[in-house]
Amino acid sequence: MTAADELAQRCADVMWADDVASRQLGMTIEAVASGTATVSMTVRDDMTNGHGTAHGGFIFALADSAFAFACNSRNERTVAQACDIVFAAPARLGDRLVAGATERARFGRNGIYDVRVTRGDDVVAEFRGRSRTIGGALVDVTEEGHDG
Amino acid sequence: MTAADELAQRCADVMWADDVASRQLGMTIEAVASGTATVSMTVRDDMTNGHGTAHGGFIFALADSAFAFACNSRNERTVAQACDIVFAAPARLGDRLVAGATERARFGRNGIYDVRVTRGDDVVAEFRGRSRTIGGALVDVTEEGHDG
Amino acid sequence: MTAADELAQRCADVMWADDVASRQLGMTIEAVASGTATVSMTVRDDMTNGHGTAHGGFIFALADSAFAFACNSRNERTVAQACDIVFAAPARLGDRLVAGATERARFGRNGIYDVRVTRGDDVVAEFRGRSRTIGGALVDVTEEGHDG
Amino acid sequence: MTAADELAQRCADVMWADDVASRQLGMTIEAVASGTATVSMTVRDDMTNGHGTAHGGFIFALADSAFAFACNSRNERTVAQACDIVFAAPARLGDRLVAGATERARFGRNGIYDVRVTRGDDVVAEFRGRSRTIGGALVDVTEEGHDG
Repeated sequence: MTAADELAQRCADVMWADDVASRQLGMTIEAVASGTATVSMTVRDDMTNGHGTAHGGFIFALADSAFAFACNSRNERTVAQACDIVFAAPARLGDRLVAGATERARFGRNGIYDVRVTRGDDVVAEFRGRSRTIGGALVDVTEEGHDG
Repeated sequence: MTAADELAQRCADVMWADDVASRQLGMTIEAVASGTATVSMTVRDDMTNGHGTAHGGFIFALADSAFAFACNSRNERTVAQACDIVFAAPARLGDRLVAGATERARFGRNGIYDVRVTRGDDVVAEFRGRSRTIGGALVDVTEEGHDG
Repeated sequence: MTAADELAQRCADVMWADDVASRQLGMTIEAVASGTATVSMTVRDDMTNGHGTAHGGFIFALADSAFAFACNSRNERTVAQACDIVFAAPARLGDRLVAGATERARFGRNGIYDVRVTRGDDVVAEFRGRSRTIGGALVDVTEEGHDG
Repeated sequence: MTAADELAQRCADVMWADDVASRQLGMTIEAVASGTATVSMTVRDDMTNGHGTAHGGFIFALADSAFAFACNSRNERTVAQACDIVFAAPARLGDRLVAGATERARFGRNGIYDVRVTRGDDVVAEFRGRSRTIGGALVDVTEEGHDG
């Protein structure tokens, strides 16, 4: 694990401790590294309509969380400016969804992240998030020497 | 109330009866008419992070529900193809959010709907949804004569 | 004409004098007011493929110009951050296209503008632009008293 | 070169012969293969404003052309439904821009293509196009045996 990836992990830990919503939705952080994050979630009964199809808002929420961990992975506080999502296939009750976020571009304070939401080999949604750094750090790296 | 608006209301009733997710999120349908819908939701503790800021996924879900009621208001089964959202201001624990969806354009089987999410006079998010009709009706209008 | 609309017109005059590209594409500014602009263009032979259908890039360019005049209408230098366009119907050789831009929201340094491109009563495209002010003015309003 | 890539090249040839607009803008097809295309263009005087900055419409047009060649590379007639573009850095008079399109997802008749526009190592814009096949082929592959 590189120092950058270790920092990404520490940023994710700080965010996760604070992220009641993602925890209550039953999300799990599968992996975090510099500029990337993978988060999973299983579609629960309260995320569906009566026919067992997931409400798009929960698929969005999963992708948005993966995006948030990826764009904050460099220890610069970063917020979502705008996101778009294309729904490729419905998700259903009990489906285990995995959202993989990767960094596409950074320029100035802006970033573009792509998130693919899959169920096994199937693509459920493609999400693109645009981020903006707002100043400040998530973890205090000046005390890093004390960690060991 | 016009016949078109009455039909919109009946479509919304059918969808709402089926929409476990929107009900569990505490949403309320404030108004539905032909091509438009207004839905409200109060930000709960389980929708926030530890600082009381709402997860973007729940703001999206509210907008997405208003979009769904609006684009299904003409009794043609219609699904979301793609959506984009711009976050203008954070929403916080206890905020009552209102999402108002209006129809912008329809062409062929496609539709474009704009949804503004507000908290009082403040804009929280601007959402645009693209829909596609998939065939079939929500309510059986052939038996309409029997209703009285 | 209000003072705000007169200022919008002066901003447009400054931009237009500088906008070689829009002029070379044969665009005409039909109207400008505070937060809005209408620009027209006729589809030329060099904007089409061999079957007389306009390349999407020129429809985008027309919408983008209307967006630019609208978002700079308050005498604050403003640039396009991001845009999206949905193509509703093809445009053809000789079609006179009209792009009408309206302001949807402003927050902080950000703005959202909607542009509809029409040919007569038909919608050709729906465009949404996101802008950001970058500081500085287009016209010097301090000397306004000398104008008369 | 695989058979799929050879077919992609033949599709591009047919489209190019027909694409007056891209030729008049001085575009060059650098490479085409199954699901991908690279197109270049130099920013001309008539694409700029008086300060030598390119009008966004021409950057969009370049990306849109790369998208078109990529999404038609499998010999199924395909059109652009919707596109979005983020402008990362201005392009200037004389800049040689290169647009590289790659396929991100296909489902049903829909496709998602990402296009990055670069100037040397710098990213000028990130574009995402959504396509839809409309039926029909670009080249007649049944007579392929007669080609030699």
